[in-house]
Amino acid sequence: MERSNSSEGAATAEIEEEVGRLVEQARELQESAASLFSKSSIEEQSLRQRALSLDSSIRRCHSLICSNKNLHPKFARKLEEDLQRARCLMVDGDASAFLPSKAQGRFLRMFLGPINVRATRKDVQLKVKEEYNSYRDRTALLFLLFPSVLLILRSSVWGGCLPAFPVQLYQAWLLFLYTGLALRENILRANGSDIRPWWIYHHYCAMLMALVSLTWEIKGQPSCTQKQRGVQLFLQWAMMQGVAMLLQNRYQRQRLYTRIALGKAKRMDVVWGETAGVDGQLWLLCPILFILQGFEAYVGLQLLRTAFVGVVSEWQVILCGMLLVLMAVGNFLNTVQTLMAKSRFKAKMKRSKSKPELD
Amino acid sequence: MERSNSSEGAATAEIEEEVGRLVEQARELQESAASLFSKSSIEEQSLRQRALSLDSSIRRCHSLICSNKNLHPKFARKLEEDLQRARCLMVDGDASAFLPSKAQGRFLRMFLGPINVRATRKDVQLKVKEEYNSYRDRTALLFLLFPSVLLILRSSVWGGCLPAFPVQLYQAWLLFLYTGLALRENILRANGSDIRPWWIYHHYCAMLMALVSLTWEIKGQPSCTQKQRGVQLFLQWAMMQGVAMLLQNRYQRQRLYTRIALGKAKRMDVVWGETAGVDGQLWLLCPILFILQGFEAYVGLQLLRTAFVGVVSEWQVILCGMLLVLMAVGNFLNTVQTLMAKSRFKAKMKRSKSKPELD
Repeated sequence: MERSNSSEGAATAEIEEEVGRLVEQARELQESAASLFSKSSIEEQSLRQRALSLDSSIRRCHSLICSNKNLHPKFARKLEEDLQRARCLMVDGDASAFLPSKAQGRFLRMFLGPINVRATRKDVQLKVKEEYNSYRDRTALLFLLFPSVLLILRSSVWGGCLPAFPVQLYQAWLLFLYTGLALRENILRANGSDIRPWWIYHHYCAMLMALVSLTWEIKGQPSCTQKQRGVQLFLQWAMMQGVAMLLQNRYQRQRLYTRIALGKAKRMDVVWGETAGVDGQLWLLCPILFILQGFEAYVGLQLLRTAFVGVVSEWQVILCGMLLVLMAVGNFLNTVQTLMAKSRFKAKMKRSKSKPELD
Repeated sequence: MERSNSSEGAATAEIEEEVGRLVEQARELQESAASLFSKSSIEEQSLRQRALSLDSSIRRCHSLICSNKNLHPKFARKLEEDLQRARCLMVDGDASAFLPSKAQGRFLRMFLGPINVRATRKDVQLKVKEEYNSYRDRTALLFLLFPSVLLILRSSVWGGCLPAFPVQLYQAWLLFLYTGLALRENILRANGSDIRPWWIYHHYCAMLMALVSLTWEIKGQPSCTQKQRGVQLFLQWAMMQGVAMLLQNRYQRQRLYTRIALGKAKRMDVVWGETAGVDGQLWLLCPILFILQGFEAYVGLQLLRTAFVGVVSEWQVILCGMLLVLMAVGNFLNTVQTLMAKSRFKAKMKRSKSKPELD
């Protein structure tokens, strides 16, 4: 009896000791974590300052070279290229985490609050970019499939008159899709991507349109076919959009990989849709994009016409029409700007072709 | 002439030197950044292992204490409290960054892709939590204002019949609001908050309902008043919801601050809506919550009745009705569970009241 009591006592003491040890360990762990944080935040601060001062030095040197008329053009070009190398080292490497990032913007704050969506490590940033590309691939397929199925069923099963539910399902999907794209693109931007702001605004417009189209009655007076003329045009446009997206994604990936290989691009570059690049495919892509934009404007104008002629005079039709025209014009202007930037870049490359390659 | 030439040459040499220095600096910066990252990732890895093993030791010790029947109850309670202190040190301190986090869940991945929304530092996590609270405050006000204005205008200006546009605007706002809340709550969860999963599911249901209600025609046969009966009930419920949210927010903040002060809560605790806590206010809050839930179920059943009696037999009405009933039942069950957990906690506290306070 006494023996069992003493062994019990020993077990109790052991547990007490163990608990004390655990509390002590927790305290130590907390201290190590806190010291790691404070140590690395000091080092990060110093790297941040170095990155900032180097960035401004590079800028100053660049303007010095540009303003100095006495430099031999070839020599100036060589210096510019060296500077560009320094810039790439900063922007593409681990040091990029210490450059000031673009502000995260109202859109992200509205949906997510003040969280930080910027990845510190370059490999994580690239994973985000990769995932965005594959998301776009999956999306493009659905973008092609969904409206085609609706249009095929319309003529084969539904006798020329779309039922409301599948169309609304499609519109809800569009709303979800564009919200996701706008969020992801804002995140890419915060991670240092150079995506043109227009493509993000474009998705805000598309979100608004999807939302408005949900409230739009698609059946009613005077007749189904007349009432659904707009929806039908919109679905046809969406199908074309799907094809164009697939082509664009293929093209963009190739271009991005080429440019990464050449070391000419920051790897976070994304240009949604229309951009400059691989020449052979551009001749196929550009006409398709312009036709698409023309068709987009045409659908918008058709909607406005039905609204003002008075067949369907709901405010939704007018707003969707205006949004489509706005998006078509914006897309067109941005495509042209990108093409012009590309041709300027090409001309510059041609001029400097004679000089021997460095490094 | 020669002199200006030589001074030009000197300037050129200076620029060349400067460019070389900048390239060198960029290389050094890149190297420092890379070494900082690799160094701190090694240290983080070791802290992660320590945190994991400590966590499992605490668990093991806890089950040891629970299973050991020979310990004096008072002594066992003291050991438990020490263990709890160790656990709090880990979970509330900087070390929490090194505990494995909950998986981020499909919802966040669907909208945001694979980005990391977890803040490493505890102070940032708390800022996220604070912002979530103030977002809820702002929201609650709008939640009260928006439907009241609609109902007041309905009877004073619109002669008993709501126009479609303001109602749809309200529904679109609800959709945006619930999406934002669901995203933020998922982010809080990833940051270690103990929010009950139901409150997040509840917001998924509410999102779906807002989306469905957007496609719902609110004017039409047989008469405006009959058609809008559901909308009217829904708006009244939303007003009550606004009042309840304001009360809840006040109560939750107080409770949270009290619990933080007592060191009893992990500071990321959020319990949307109905929870345990400050007794005086709970007597006010609980009846309001139960009345609200009852009214929610009543509105849902009314919608189902109108649908099945055949006044308005759109699928949207049926789905919204079912969702409301589902949410009411879920809310009720979760409130009751929380109250029961609270009373169990209280009983436990009472039992251990006699023992002197430690530390």
